[in-house]
Amino acid sequence: MISVLPVEGLPEIREGDDLGALISRAVALEDADVVVVAQKAVSKAEGRVVRLDEVVPGEQARALAGERDPRHTQAILDESVRVVRERAGFIIGEARHGFVCGSAGVDASNAPEQGTLVLLPLDPDASAERLRARLREPDGGQVGVVVSDSFGRAWRLGTTDVAIGTAGIRVLLDLQGSVDPAGYELHATQIAVADEIAAAAELAMRKLARVPAAVVRGLDVAGEGSAQELVMPAERDLFR
Amino acid sequence: MISVLPVEGLPEIREGDDLGALISRAVALEDADVVVVAQKAVSKAEGRVVRLDEVVPGEQARALAGERDPRHTQAILDESVRVVRERAGFIIGEARHGFVCGSAGVDASNAPEQGTLVLLPLDPDASAERLRARLREPDGGQVGVVVSDSFGRAWRLGTTDVAIGTAGIRVLLDLQGSVDPAGYELHATQIAVADEIAAAAELAMRKLARVPAAVVRGLDVAGEGSAQELVMPAERDLFR
Repeated sequence: MISVLPVEGLPEIREGDDLGALISRAVALEDADVVVVAQKAVSKAEGRVVRLDEVVPGEQARALAGERDPRHTQAILDESVRVVRERAGFIIGEARHGFVCGSAGVDASNAPEQGTLVLLPLDPDASAERLRARLREPDGGQVGVVVSDSFGRAWRLGTTDVAIGTAGIRVLLDLQGSVDPAGYELHATQIAVADEIAAAAELAMRKLARVPAAVVRGLDVAGEGSAQELVMPAERDLFR
Repeated sequence: MISVLPVEGLPEIREGDDLGALISRAVALEDADVVVVAQKAVSKAEGRVVRLDEVVPGEQARALAGERDPRHTQAILDESVRVVRERAGFIIGEARHGFVCGSAGVDASNAPEQGTLVLLPLDPDASAERLRARLREPDGGQVGVVVSDSFGRAWRLGTTDVAIGTAGIRVLLDLQGSVDPAGYELHATQIAVADEIAAAAELAMRKLARVPAAVVRGLDVAGEGSAQELVMPAERDLFR
């Protein structure tokens, strides 16, 4: 059985907060637990926030803004290494880490205050590793960490939470070379288990109730891995 | 807390099997449980299988087949209302239900025998509804059903399980009009909760061990909904 436990009772996260220590005080971790932390909380603790009144919109931002504040659009462009699609003020951007998502991860919702925008962590794998170093791990046991964010998808409505940073877990479970019971080789099957862990955690998080972390218990995914493994290499990307 | 319980001890599924009754014998359901059943099992029970030796490849199939058996490619084309992308024998197709996925859902792995291909159910919502009608629901309680499949994603490596058919649950949780603690209206947030349920279930299923179903317990998603709500309408689709 797998359990997903919300981490309740956390305070509103502010810049400089020791998020790992706060989570350790709120929940007793067990061996092989995976702690999933919402990107918004990680970014706030890391101070990855910009004030709109510090952003000067350029020509491209004014052209693409639509009904949006052009400073908001400029912040999105500043976070994008590539604009993948844009329409009516909505931008799908490739962020510095290779992740493709709406507004390149720039988000005004659940920001610290009106007039601020929360950005993705600069290096979400490093964020996960730092969090892991601050979690009180069980005696003789180790835990994994996933930094998650809510991404839209091509062809499907609604967001699902995915992994943008990981530490201490395998990210892709590779079934290549396995043989199913009929003898058919599963040569194309890699499961994005880190994304499925993020999605499972979201079910317990309930965004509006300020539960920015959950523990997924009962998995067997301890190991080494980087969320960068989830980024489709350009040469295999049919949707550039 | 949310729990994900694998449904163990099911036999190999064959055409005509009463999958709902088999699951009911294997697990005691509780009120508000969501039963997730892998598409492969549903399709086999429904006889949605073709034999390669019954498929005659046409000109397009021979042109697109690459190193694949052109009869296999023909089966994919037969299941596609639109070829979204193709490269080197790999086809991303839009299936009759609007779902966009690799090979339009046609799959040789875990097929009943060599030389056969498993197709998606003709109407996965109806499959979910039929399954639900055959599940032994708890006294005074009701359960939901998700038919899940493993889909690849644009820009991200690896598959995650998503919902292709549902019964008795809300599919998209709509946060539109909600206001976050800073007063920012969450006007763009819909969570694809049915997809997250499918992903959570996959974590417990373990493909090679023949566990084609799992129960997700502890959710609050009972209601009406169709997996068709997850299909991005053409006019909003930036990746046609």
